[in-house]
Amino acid sequence: MTYCVGLLIDEGLVMAGDTRTNAGLDNVGKFKKLFTWAKEGERVFMLLTAGNLAITQAVISLLNEAMTGPKATKSADSLFAATTMFQAARIVGKAIRQVRDIDGEHLGANSESFSASFIFGGQIGKERPRLFQIYAEGNFIEATPDTPFFQIGEHKYGKPILDRVADAQMKLGEAAKMVLISFDSTLRSNLSVGLPIDMLTYEKGSLKFEHVKRIGQDDPYFRMVSSEWSKALRVAFRNIEPFDI
Amino acid sequence: MTYCVGLLIDEGLVMAGDTRTNAGLDNVGKFKKLFTWAKEGERVFMLLTAGNLAITQAVISLLNEAMTGPKATKSADSLFAATTMFQAARIVGKAIRQVRDIDGEHLGANSESFSASFIFGGQIGKERPRLFQIYAEGNFIEATPDTPFFQIGEHKYGKPILDRVADAQMKLGEAAKMVLISFDSTLRSNLSVGLPIDMLTYEKGSLKFEHVKRIGQDDPYFRMVSSEWSKALRVAFRNIEPFDI
Repeated sequence: MTYCVGLLIDEGLVMAGDTRTNAGLDNVGKFKKLFTWAKEGERVFMLLTAGNLAITQAVISLLNEAMTGPKATKSADSLFAATTMFQAARIVGKAIRQVRDIDGEHLGANSESFSASFIFGGQIGKERPRLFQIYAEGNFIEATPDTPFFQIGEHKYGKPILDRVADAQMKLGEAAKMVLISFDSTLRSNLSVGLPIDMLTYEKGSLKFEHVKRIGQDDPYFRMVSSEWSKALRVAFRNIEPFDI
Repeated sequence: MTYCVGLLIDEGLVMAGDTRTNAGLDNVGKFKKLFTWAKEGERVFMLLTAGNLAITQAVISLLNEAMTGPKATKSADSLFAATTMFQAARIVGKAIRQVRDIDGEHLGANSESFSASFIFGGQIGKERPRLFQIYAEGNFIEATPDTPFFQIGEHKYGKPILDRVADAQMKLGEAAKMVLISFDSTLRSNLSVGLPIDMLTYEKGSLKFEHVKRIGQDDPYFRMVSSEWSKALRVAFRNIEPFDI
């Protein structure tokens, strides 16, 4: 399984994904699920992936190939040629559909076996940063201030903190802290989500990636958040009066 | 969907279930999912149910019928005849298997369509209180101090607080508070789980039910827990230093 979160706030974007993959309980691997592409000063893209690794890797390869070579800035399949984030999201959707055309029928009769989902964010030129959740069918929805985040993979354990705290007006550092707490809850309750976490914080308008971090078991900030949050929850719990039997 | 929790602590048992059932989003109903049987001073049983309502209601009816009439204290199918909680859990399992024998093949070809799960607790005579999770197959597992709780239904949202706080040594009033916080997280994140909550706290050795409560939207304690917990989480969140971008 996987856990990924994308968050769109006024200050920019936070994108984070774990790195554990598993096929059964005794076949556990470590694979990156956060992918980025940039032309500094012009455009940045970030993609989080969940689902069947063969599918998501094929999507990434198709996107990469379209961005390489002399046609990279002209091809209708290249993210480097898109003029808006909506167009860019359609290019990712198209890549997913291409993989389905190639592999779909070999993956079994029903569409459920074609399992993949994506969170796609970025900014192009003067357009505001935008965030999309893209389905295995290649269509997508876009984040709005009402619900500024998307989750894919094992999303339930880490949702309550997002439901309570997420807000488009929060600062980037607060948003990153919230995302890490959401990961902490998920990691504690579900074995199929594992460290390290790849986390990217993107400052609106910067049009470059300055803050990409791999957060492992020994990361002092993550350890602090994890232990302080645990302590705070226990104190909060103690401070509420018990149920009167 | 459904959310139910059963917890076995040194002081006794806490059993709680919501009351929402749904078949699709526009066919929502209210049904009790917490069932109790008692012979005061001799034995008490509590059963929480999740899954296909036709199956769980049939199981309850079979159990009820075996406990009625002249054979109630002799029949091998009657909870009133069981001499240990292990035997009682087998009787519940047997009732589930009976329903499968009657309805199973009509519910479709595969066993997944026979969806039902149960949390069964109680105490008989001088035996200690015991708690079981009983599967659709009729077999079961028993709670131990390592993991003193079981959840059925929509269990993920409410699991982090149990994972952090649940402990066999906690007091009954604290345990009931924890269970209500777990419900609060679930209710906020999942529409298919709904108020009121039926909650029972059982004091070890009492062999009677004194504390069964239906907790609705206007319950002052639940409102207080819900709002205090929200406030405390926000304060706890604010008190952790932000991620340094």
